[in-house]
Amino acid sequence: MQPVMSAEEMRRFLQDEFPQVMGPDGGFFVEAVEDGAIVMKLAAAERHLRPGGTVSGPTLFTLADVSAYVAILAHIGPVALAVTTNMSINFLLKPPPGTLVATAKILKLGKRLAVVEVAIAGDGDGTTVCHAVATYSIPPSSPGA
Amino acid sequence: MQPVMSAEEMRRFLQDEFPQVMGPDGGFFVEAVEDGAIVMKLAAAERHLRPGGTVSGPTLFTLADVSAYVAILAHIGPVALAVTTNMSINFLLKPPPGTLVATAKILKLGKRLAVVEVAIAGDGDGTTVCHAVATYSIPPSSPGA
Amino acid sequence: MQPVMSAEEMRRFLQDEFPQVMGPDGGFFVEAVEDGAIVMKLAAAERHLRPGGTVSGPTLFTLADVSAYVAILAHIGPVALAVTTNMSINFLLKPPPGTLVATAKILKLGKRLAVVEVAIAGDGDGTTVCHAVATYSIPPSSPGA
Amino acid sequence: MQPVMSAEEMRRFLQDEFPQVMGPDGGFFVEAVEDGAIVMKLAAAERHLRPGGTVSGPTLFTLADVSAYVAILAHIGPVALAVTTNMSINFLLKPPPGTLVATAKILKLGKRLAVVEVAIAGDGDGTTVCHAVATYSIPPSSPGA
Repeated sequence: MQPVMSAEEMRRFLQDEFPQVMGPDGGFFVEAVEDGAIVMKLAAAERHLRPGGTVSGPTLFTLADVSAYVAILAHIGPVALAVTTNMSINFLLKPPPGTLVATAKILKLGKRLAVVEVAIAGDGDGTTVCHAVATYSIPPSSPGA
Repeated sequence: MQPVMSAEEMRRFLQDEFPQVMGPDGGFFVEAVEDGAIVMKLAAAERHLRPGGTVSGPTLFTLADVSAYVAILAHIGPVALAVTTNMSINFLLKPPPGTLVATAKILKLGKRLAVVEVAIAGDGDGTTVCHAVATYSIPPSSPGA
Repeated sequence: MQPVMSAEEMRRFLQDEFPQVMGPDGGFFVEAVEDGAIVMKLAAAERHLRPGGTVSGPTLFTLADVSAYVAILAHIGPVALAVTTNMSINFLLKPPPGTLVATAKILKLGKRLAVVEVAIAGDGDGTTVCHAVATYSIPPSSPGA
Repeated sequence: MQPVMSAEEMRRFLQDEFPQVMGPDGGFFVEAVEDGAIVMKLAAAERHLRPGGTVSGPTLFTLADVSAYVAILAHIGPVALAVTTNMSINFLLKPPPGTLVATAKILKLGKRLAVVEVAIAGDGDGTTVCHAVATYSIPPSSPGA
């Protein structure tokens, strides 16, 4: 499955479209775009943490959701308006402090539905702390769909 | 299934424990505690919205998660440290602007696991826009577990 | 949400299309068709049981899947070829022996996707032993879609 | 994560405990036990198929469930009575005819909960046709738990 956008093209697109989240202060960063997958990093800031210093559930959900969305767009192009229809997310372990790394792999990229698996781990640590599978609906008008 | 805390007791507990989210400016409010269920409202503020003015996916996730957590605590007491282990969430319709209402019903309240179903609708509108089923792990030390 | 088929029409359709499962010996029976919902019974036979006499996980999955499918067809008509794309199923309690009752409620019936919630209990017993949420893809050619 | 049973030990255990399903005529076969994972094959027989000749949804559910169960037992030993509490299963593509291969990887093996990811493909074909994530509850009395 060949991507149609590079990591740099994806970064520019996301900064233009979602400046708060994907800009320099947002914490999210597209690390790599690969065949059928992408890697995204989140440098967790104060607002992402809950008491005790670990990343909150909603932040893990957001990281999984953004990563899956980026994986799809990297393979169908920046115009599509994919929307999340379902996410099943498992919270496996308390996330380590510091930067988190999400790897999103496309399980299915159909004309109408895409399914993406996301594994989140600490940076430099292979242990998956959160795992999600997300389904996106791809609108009929998408040129890439 | 009898609750062990009233809505007012639950409000006070949440404001003490999570002042940012559950305080007067947080937007979340425990509307009612019933047998096996609770009702929570979210007065969506600017930070909960995405472009276009609808409540964002992470905000819906948070509302579902908080509602399920409150339903469990209302029935086992305020001391338990239940943690979310899984949530499967379906985004059905674009949420209406304004206040959202979440109804959380306990499907199972076991010694080690609780399963809660949450339906989210617009205030005064019966149409479910988001539906979630969440599993919580209840630690062995919980007095109520 | 108005059904377009009666319980009797649905029974005849299912017996014609799936004679092994929905015929007199199959064990599945459409009890009622209501607004936005259906009720189905399963008279568990020997082949549905696992050691110990309780209904097996695959049988509960099948009951949830068939019930959700019947709920959709009852509201879009017998011609549609809806296919399951996702099911999240929670096994809450060991099912009681004897007949099981599944209540399937439509959460969303869109042009392309339908989402149905299914609660399974013992006959004459309100306790939910299994709960599932299923997503179906409705093909573009469906007249009712 | 080191397994505590070999593929051959697992085969013998399953044949003794579940002779109908795991015996020579059952169709299920433990192909390999690896670190943190197992591989299982299903030689689909007539009873596993639906009209059109593809493996049915309940059969895919059963294959995912059995594979996840075997992965857990291979790592905690044959005595544990793990029970499925949740499965989220995505049906991605119509399965190819013939033998299916399920690869089950343990995402978490805790004292009380185990989470396993299962990918199902055709034999000799890398395309995932069905993907599931299952949660099992491990009873307190399990020696390996």
